[in-house]
Amino acid sequence: MPEAEADIGLIGLAVMGQNLVLNMADNGFTVAVFNRTTSKVDDFTAGPAAGKSILGTHSLEAFCQSLKAPRRIMLMVKAGSAVDDFIELLKPYLDESDIIIDGGNSLYTDTQRRVDSLAKQGFRFLGVGVSGGEEGARFGPSLMPGGDPEAWPAVKDIFQAISAKVDGQACCEWMGEGGAGHYVKMVHNGIEYGDMQLICEAYQALREGLNIPFDDLQGIFEQWNGGVLDSYLIEITRDILGVRDTDNAPLVDKVLDTAGQKGTGKWTGINALESGIPLTLIGEAVFARFLSTLKEQRVQAAKQLRGPTPPPVESQDQALMINNIHDALYASKIISYAQGFMLMASTSDEKGWNLNYGNIALVWRGGCIIRSRFLNNIKEAFEKKTDLNNLLLDGFFRDAIHDSQTGWRSAIQFAVGGGIPTPAFSAALAFYDGYRSATLPANLLQAQRDYFGAHTYERIDKPRGEVFHSDWSGKS
Amino acid sequence: MPEAEADIGLIGLAVMGQNLVLNMADNGFTVAVFNRTTSKVDDFTAGPAAGKSILGTHSLEAFCQSLKAPRRIMLMVKAGSAVDDFIELLKPYLDESDIIIDGGNSLYTDTQRRVDSLAKQGFRFLGVGVSGGEEGARFGPSLMPGGDPEAWPAVKDIFQAISAKVDGQACCEWMGEGGAGHYVKMVHNGIEYGDMQLICEAYQALREGLNIPFDDLQGIFEQWNGGVLDSYLIEITRDILGVRDTDNAPLVDKVLDTAGQKGTGKWTGINALESGIPLTLIGEAVFARFLSTLKEQRVQAAKQLRGPTPPPVESQDQALMINNIHDALYASKIISYAQGFMLMASTSDEKGWNLNYGNIALVWRGGCIIRSRFLNNIKEAFEKKTDLNNLLLDGFFRDAIHDSQTGWRSAIQFAVGGGIPTPAFSAALAFYDGYRSATLPANLLQAQRDYFGAHTYERIDKPRGEVFHSDWSGKS
Repeated sequence: MPEAEADIGLIGLAVMGQNLVLNMADNGFTVAVFNRTTSKVDDFTAGPAAGKSILGTHSLEAFCQSLKAPRRIMLMVKAGSAVDDFIELLKPYLDESDIIIDGGNSLYTDTQRRVDSLAKQGFRFLGVGVSGGEEGARFGPSLMPGGDPEAWPAVKDIFQAISAKVDGQACCEWMGEGGAGHYVKMVHNGIEYGDMQLICEAYQALREGLNIPFDDLQGIFEQWNGGVLDSYLIEITRDILGVRDTDNAPLVDKVLDTAGQKGTGKWTGINALESGIPLTLIGEAVFARFLSTLKEQRVQAAKQLRGPTPPPVESQDQALMINNIHDALYASKIISYAQGFMLMASTSDEKGWNLNYGNIALVWRGGCIIRSRFLNNIKEAFEKKTDLNNLLLDGFFRDAIHDSQTGWRSAIQFAVGGGIPTPAFSAALAFYDGYRSATLPANLLQAQRDYFGAHTYERIDKPRGEVFHSDWSGKS
Repeated sequence: MPEAEADIGLIGLAVMGQNLVLNMADNGFTVAVFNRTTSKVDDFTAGPAAGKSILGTHSLEAFCQSLKAPRRIMLMVKAGSAVDDFIELLKPYLDESDIIIDGGNSLYTDTQRRVDSLAKQGFRFLGVGVSGGEEGARFGPSLMPGGDPEAWPAVKDIFQAISAKVDGQACCEWMGEGGAGHYVKMVHNGIEYGDMQLICEAYQALREGLNIPFDDLQGIFEQWNGGVLDSYLIEITRDILGVRDTDNAPLVDKVLDTAGQKGTGKWTGINALESGIPLTLIGEAVFARFLSTLKEQRVQAAKQLRGPTPPPVESQDQALMINNIHDALYASKIISYAQGFMLMASTSDEKGWNLNYGNIALVWRGGCIIRSRFLNNIKEAFEKKTDLNNLLLDGFFRDAIHDSQTGWRSAIQFAVGGGIPTPAFSAALAFYDGYRSATLPANLLQAQRDYFGAHTYERIDKPRGEVFHSDWSGKS
């Protein structure tokens, strides 16, 4: 019987799993590994893992025997039934209080179910959101752990050690019970959809609206990356715009414009609809990906449906309009995060998670795809006021919106007039103008519902809950 | 044992149920009725049903005994478990091939489940969408029957007799198998959300953007109702804008601006997210209702978040801008229906329903909340080309959009500049400009995904399905 010497075990040696293992080993932990196709174990231990504190195993029994108590077992397998399958396969080799950790992109309701069901069986389960892609997994991801709170102290050192660091702080903090970790990761991904869509809109407005030469685009994003938009996604956009194909044409122009997705943006939208939260920007970003997939229809439609031609912009006005587009991107991004935090607050209340919004901003500051300077401002906003109702009501963000809104509006007017689609810029502005409206035309809507369905209405001059019905037809 | 003399039976004597029964009786059918609280049966038969061919019963046994074979039993009970409960209570009194009809607002997946499960037990089940509110139920609703196709001939005469008629045609046609009827009703409701939101945006742009005096608003909607926007919802808006409170202030101004909802719009949005269809306008309409419910937050935000003041509009320009707002409403409405039919086509393909889009437009032309002249044009478009890919590619609608788009764009620019939220107008235009884009910036988005996640991409100059990965960082 092998000695139980490994600090943690990991199952699933695809690239994310391998990189997390290497990261753990670099941080001084001994890691046992297993993979369903065991040849992958041998390839890994003979290859990238050679000479490191990494133990290959060829059976779940040997894998479990090699782990110190309480066992810490991380699954990096495909989200869905594979997670449940491995849980069942592992159980015979586990002791009470052993910990199973799911690091995949699991739906948070699945995680909630697994936490509850394993707790009843005496085991402990964590669902950990892992962001940062292959690079993050290898050198420091953003980690969003949640699940059984008793399990957290037993894994905290390992996860905080391997996570990204910003200003000396680990991008890994406890999110909350049940499905909280995977939930926060889901919203992270939704926000990532929004950020990417916003950059795409800015890019199209610059390139097709303003007719900026391709060679000048990289410099604009480089400049933006030096300011309030400083972020990983702006940085990689700058890089992408510097890449040429073998024929010297921009490589991005050779890429087929049909966006893929793995479902987390869609889940975020569904969560918003079920929670009653107006998550309009991420909604538009998800829908924009859907629209992009209709490539053949769009090619046909382009031949039949006319639009305006963007009006020529005088060169002295061009610099101004570039700034307007910058401001539209920045202001819209503020709206997107405000909506995302509204959504998290709603679900946190419903589930009793007590999410700590400052900590969420903290763990997103580094390691993950949406990492940015901006998240420092969010962290500060929630540190100043932990019960902040809405990011827009924080002084920093309120001022930022006030400073940006003239440009934001001009950029949208420019795009609308020029036939450039800016669904997310526009959704963000409509939300802003709606959110700051003490009175919305929903009063007319309620009157319509009372007219045709006798749904009744409340009155502004009567207590909430008291309902009225009128004959609006003027017939009686 | 009573003689089996009733043509159809109805369970659930709330106002919708009562009105359907009276409508059936007026059309020459003998109707048995039952209600869980049996005093309601007596009140009904002694009251509105007195002297009509309506038989009150006090037990499900007597109710079932009073029905001709095959029994036709319509449930008008609360959607959800009440439907399942009554099905179970009825079964002991049913014979093979008897038909249960659910006329409530059931979720189409529940209907699908009931059709399948009852078919296995030898019974037949229909899920019928009923639209038109109380008035429609009494004098002619729009009916969307679906479910077991063998049951349809047995109820067709009754349902077509009681339905609304337009140009001599019944607003009731077979929708398709399984949950098709309730599905089409769900999308109808989603479209209704969109139509209502569009009217609200036009109203707010007129009133707060253009500062049109309240007394002049009714005339504008009256005029619009005489043109391409001719519809029930425009008509009732006109009526509502004529109603004054006891203090002579507009009654609509006394209505609290927090919109209620019963969930069908939300379901439609979720269906779109699950189906991969960009249903942006209805999405915004649902989100706008959510935003409206945050009344207290909005009142607070209005004090802190600044916006622009709508610029004064010269009186000769005012008439033009009213027309622009009209055109924005019309063009956006076309987009909304185009998106709704895209969604239905996607789900129809997935479920194998073979939905007939011309018939859907036909049954929506009368009786229901979204009835309008416009639906004639949709019916004609699908009659001309039953496999029409998208409403926007029909000549009539393409021309209508082309004629409207200058005004549509101007109205949005005006609202954006003036701080008036027009989320649905804007979402519709962004969809139009995206849909007619042969190339979207999703190529940049795919490059980003390939950069950070090695998700690979397809190329415009290579066959679909062939994938590529590049080093976009310029580091190697």
